[in-house]
Amino acid sequence: MTNELQDAFNKSTYQLPGNGRRNVQVLKDAFENIDGQLDSDIYGTGKVIEEFQDKIAAFLGKEKAVFFPSGTMAQQIALRIWCEEIGLQKVAYHPLSHLEIHEEDGLKELHNIKTILLADETRVIELDDVVSMDEDVACLLLELPQREIGGQLPGYETLVGISRYCRKNGIKLHLDGARLLEVLPYYEKTVTEVCELFDSVYLSFYKGIGGVAGAILAGEDKFIGKSKVWKRRYGGDLISLYPYIISADYYFDQRLHKMTEYYENAKELAGFYNSCHNVTTLPKIPVSNMFHVHFPHSKEEIEPILAEVIRETGVGIINHLKATGESSSYFEVSIGDRYQEFPKAAVKNAFLQLDRLMKNKFSF
Amino acid sequence: MTNELQDAFNKSTYQLPGNGRRNVQVLKDAFENIDGQLDSDIYGTGKVIEEFQDKIAAFLGKEKAVFFPSGTMAQQIALRIWCEEIGLQKVAYHPLSHLEIHEEDGLKELHNIKTILLADETRVIELDDVVSMDEDVACLLLELPQREIGGQLPGYETLVGISRYCRKNGIKLHLDGARLLEVLPYYEKTVTEVCELFDSVYLSFYKGIGGVAGAILAGEDKFIGKSKVWKRRYGGDLISLYPYIISADYYFDQRLHKMTEYYENAKELAGFYNSCHNVTTLPKIPVSNMFHVHFPHSKEEIEPILAEVIRETGVGIINHLKATGESSSYFEVSIGDRYQEFPKAAVKNAFLQLDRLMKNKFSF
Repeated sequence: MTNELQDAFNKSTYQLPGNGRRNVQVLKDAFENIDGQLDSDIYGTGKVIEEFQDKIAAFLGKEKAVFFPSGTMAQQIALRIWCEEIGLQKVAYHPLSHLEIHEEDGLKELHNIKTILLADETRVIELDDVVSMDEDVACLLLELPQREIGGQLPGYETLVGISRYCRKNGIKLHLDGARLLEVLPYYEKTVTEVCELFDSVYLSFYKGIGGVAGAILAGEDKFIGKSKVWKRRYGGDLISLYPYIISADYYFDQRLHKMTEYYENAKELAGFYNSCHNVTTLPKIPVSNMFHVHFPHSKEEIEPILAEVIRETGVGIINHLKATGESSSYFEVSIGDRYQEFPKAAVKNAFLQLDRLMKNKFSF
Repeated sequence: MTNELQDAFNKSTYQLPGNGRRNVQVLKDAFENIDGQLDSDIYGTGKVIEEFQDKIAAFLGKEKAVFFPSGTMAQQIALRIWCEEIGLQKVAYHPLSHLEIHEEDGLKELHNIKTILLADETRVIELDDVVSMDEDVACLLLELPQREIGGQLPGYETLVGISRYCRKNGIKLHLDGARLLEVLPYYEKTVTEVCELFDSVYLSFYKGIGGVAGAILAGEDKFIGKSKVWKRRYGGDLISLYPYIISADYYFDQRLHKMTEYYENAKELAGFYNSCHNVTTLPKIPVSNMFHVHFPHSKEEIEPILAEVIRETGVGIINHLKATGESSSYFEVSIGDRYQEFPKAAVKNAFLQLDRLMKNKFSF
């Protein structure tokens, strides 16, 4: 299938989103200075995996951590453990949670866990949603930021309130922190100040960090011990996870301190989008390195315009566009290393061009 | 914990078992000639994963194949699919199957599948065991070779008989082929001649092949389609599996044609062991690249002898020993690239030494 937009993006000079292409070089760079004589981890043991787990546990302010091949596996397991601990096969999360829409119902099919959906597809979960639940749950999962609605966030005080309520009412609180590091600049909080509100925390290494794959699940010693048993049950206790661990560690060290830069650049770029005719971002002002860009027009109408902007200016603003209805479309933007590298004049020029083409087509 | 045997092995000149240390160099070698610009696979799609899946499906003579991070995940999923297809939550396998003893009961905990154990801990499953089952099962799993009993094998005609019986009686037949390639020289059959007897096949890439990790599950198109849904449910559908795929492909090409060499060397090495006082191998004559070495003496008695042989001769015959009772112990040997490299005189000398020390200690 030819895709005009992807094609224009691939040929562009400046590609604004992300950290770069997901290619083999990402792995090669991470391994370049690693001694070949370093022993593999073996089924969850060994220096490579244990040291990284200890490092991230300490970073998050949790007793222990375990490295998982994926967040899908880590989070289902966290919820299963909390359900068994509380003795109730029910959890609550947002209707657009990763578990609800991207995992083929793994939580339900593998664990028979029932789900309560809080808030709705336009907003994040607030304290009121939690307090007014009319069913008991073993665990509440909060995703920070809520990716599928543009990366929106509750205020930090809301987190504190929800955490306090859950502790008082015997509800375990789990953090889907796939993009946790990316929200710290907005919260102006340390990572431990956020994590201490939660009983268990999941962190991804291929979002803002830009590693190859892999995740960390962190919590108390007993919880992590149980998670290792489930990791083996899932077939996630691979003989060697070091390809993911070493690259996670490499890019974590390289990008952890860049989250503020990504956040500031996301706000700037969202501003450029919002200056264009019939273009709006969600959130209007980003609260992390990500946001969504919405058009009140069909994918078929918008795609050629985006492609034309890219071809004319050399600025690869985006490579994909999704239809959300017959006359609406959107795409997601995540800022990484690349945005910073490009001449601001070229970027501004691309948005002047986008504004011009949008006005030409949609001003009547 | 100091371990005299492991220590002696680590310092030895010639290390007989396996393909070499499991270290980072294994990955580096596989990636040395891979272009960094090669794109990652993305959640199960892309050239890297699709081409390898097609290559192995064709090699095994199956319609389709899917790459999994682990065999544990692949096999549980295969059995679940067959249970749903037949409408019966029950499968049969050997009491020392990987699923029964190494997976923390994942099959039961995640799928509530009941298991019937066939044969016993001294022998492989024969046609009679299958025919005389007094309960219906959806699927029978055969492991070739049966690793935990030294890598024993049923005859090829037995496989044909079991396959015929299962097809006639509506029982799906799954092959745990973690070490499938390693048994082909003994069977004197092609891989497709073995695989065509089974409805689904699992193959590992870090046993004889010596890759980093990963597995293939192969079967008909419809079965593989379902397995991809379950792979996502398990959190096995990683954004990038290429570190395992590229290394699997590299070592597959490098070692596929060496299985006969490994088998011949295993027979020779087993002969050396059997020539020693109070040392026996299981099987007596290996039928693959692996066998077990048994001693009618305690681990505490045998470990110092093995360590002394290694220190005196420089030949690292083994690095581990397991107690099986108060006065019995054993270890597992798998032959790979290394055995072939060493001067035969040094190897023979080590076994003369082992025989001498065993006689000194245990002849009365």
